[in-house]
Amino acid sequence: MSGKDFSLDDGIALLERTPATLTTLLGQMPDTWIKADEGEGTWTPYDIIGHLIHGERTDWIPRARHILARETSPFEPFDRTAQFQDSRNQSFNELLVTFAELRRENLRSLREMNLGREDLQLPGQHPELGAVTLGQLLATWVAHDLDHLGQIARTMAKVYKEATGPWNAYLSILHDREK
Amino acid sequence: MSGKDFSLDDGIALLERTPATLTTLLGQMPDTWIKADEGEGTWTPYDIIGHLIHGERTDWIPRARHILARETSPFEPFDRTAQFQDSRNQSFNELLVTFAELRRENLRSLREMNLGREDLQLPGQHPELGAVTLGQLLATWVAHDLDHLGQIARTMAKVYKEATGPWNAYLSILHDREK
Repeated sequence: MSGKDFSLDDGIALLERTPATLTTLLGQMPDTWIKADEGEGTWTPYDIIGHLIHGERTDWIPRARHILARETSPFEPFDRTAQFQDSRNQSFNELLVTFAELRRENLRSLREMNLGREDLQLPGQHPELGAVTLGQLLATWVAHDLDHLGQIARTMAKVYKEATGPWNAYLSILHDREK
Repeated sequence: MSGKDFSLDDGIALLERTPATLTTLLGQMPDTWIKADEGEGTWTPYDIIGHLIHGERTDWIPRARHILARETSPFEPFDRTAQFQDSRNQSFNELLVTFAELRRENLRSLREMNLGREDLQLPGQHPELGAVTLGQLLATWVAHDLDHLGQIARTMAKVYKEATGPWNAYLSILHDREK
């Protein structure tokens, strides 16, 4: 069931597996999969890894530090399309390596914060959403990884949307976010 | 874009990565993740791995052999809930190992079939869907892996549906298949 409280141990268990999961799924894969998208204006796995890298650089740990410094100003807004500039000229495998390195450093920083349960209640100010907590930020980091893993699976599955023929009707992921 | 023809090389590239991807994501994970579901009647990652195992045993390769034997009778129906009997008393890590072993054997069988492009057009008879081809069966094997990877990501993300607080609104996977 949904509805668990954020747990630092459970959250880190997922966060530390994401780079290896994505590298196992996507490393050395043909462009059929890496450059697939769901139609105009949607992202490829290549774009998504770039987006995850930008999050490691500018979102999760910088915002956690902002909260722990008792800053009352809003977080810097997050640029959701920065990867279209940042990732240019980088190979997909370079992106996977960069993501894994940044995630490892960020989890080291997270552990060094030595957060207790009460710290998870510390308040932050989101530029659009308003009042949030450190625990909500960290739960979002986890769910955001899974959101994009799901997006990658959906995008790849749709490559064979027509190729599955009549089975199309049984594969519900092929009909998610249908245009 | 969607709409690629099935390619044996691209398909196998995905099929051979799925067990390691799932083991990397889920191996040794706390029950918070393994036993999560999306609400009554939905499946946990534990259930899903059992379902993938049943597919390896009774669906993909047996049906491919049925087609290659020029059988005109329909395929045996696939039991979509067999895992609730089969997986009982097995640890999650045993299921991951079993899935990886069966997949490895099945990909060996697939390669030994030495399929050419024309073989992908060979006809089969699905008990519910009617006329299908070998190529459609194999494309469905691939898309089915990705369908369940997406389901696992969605199910795990929803564990933190409430914990993300206001960010809930930005995480679209939390709202897929909402009840």
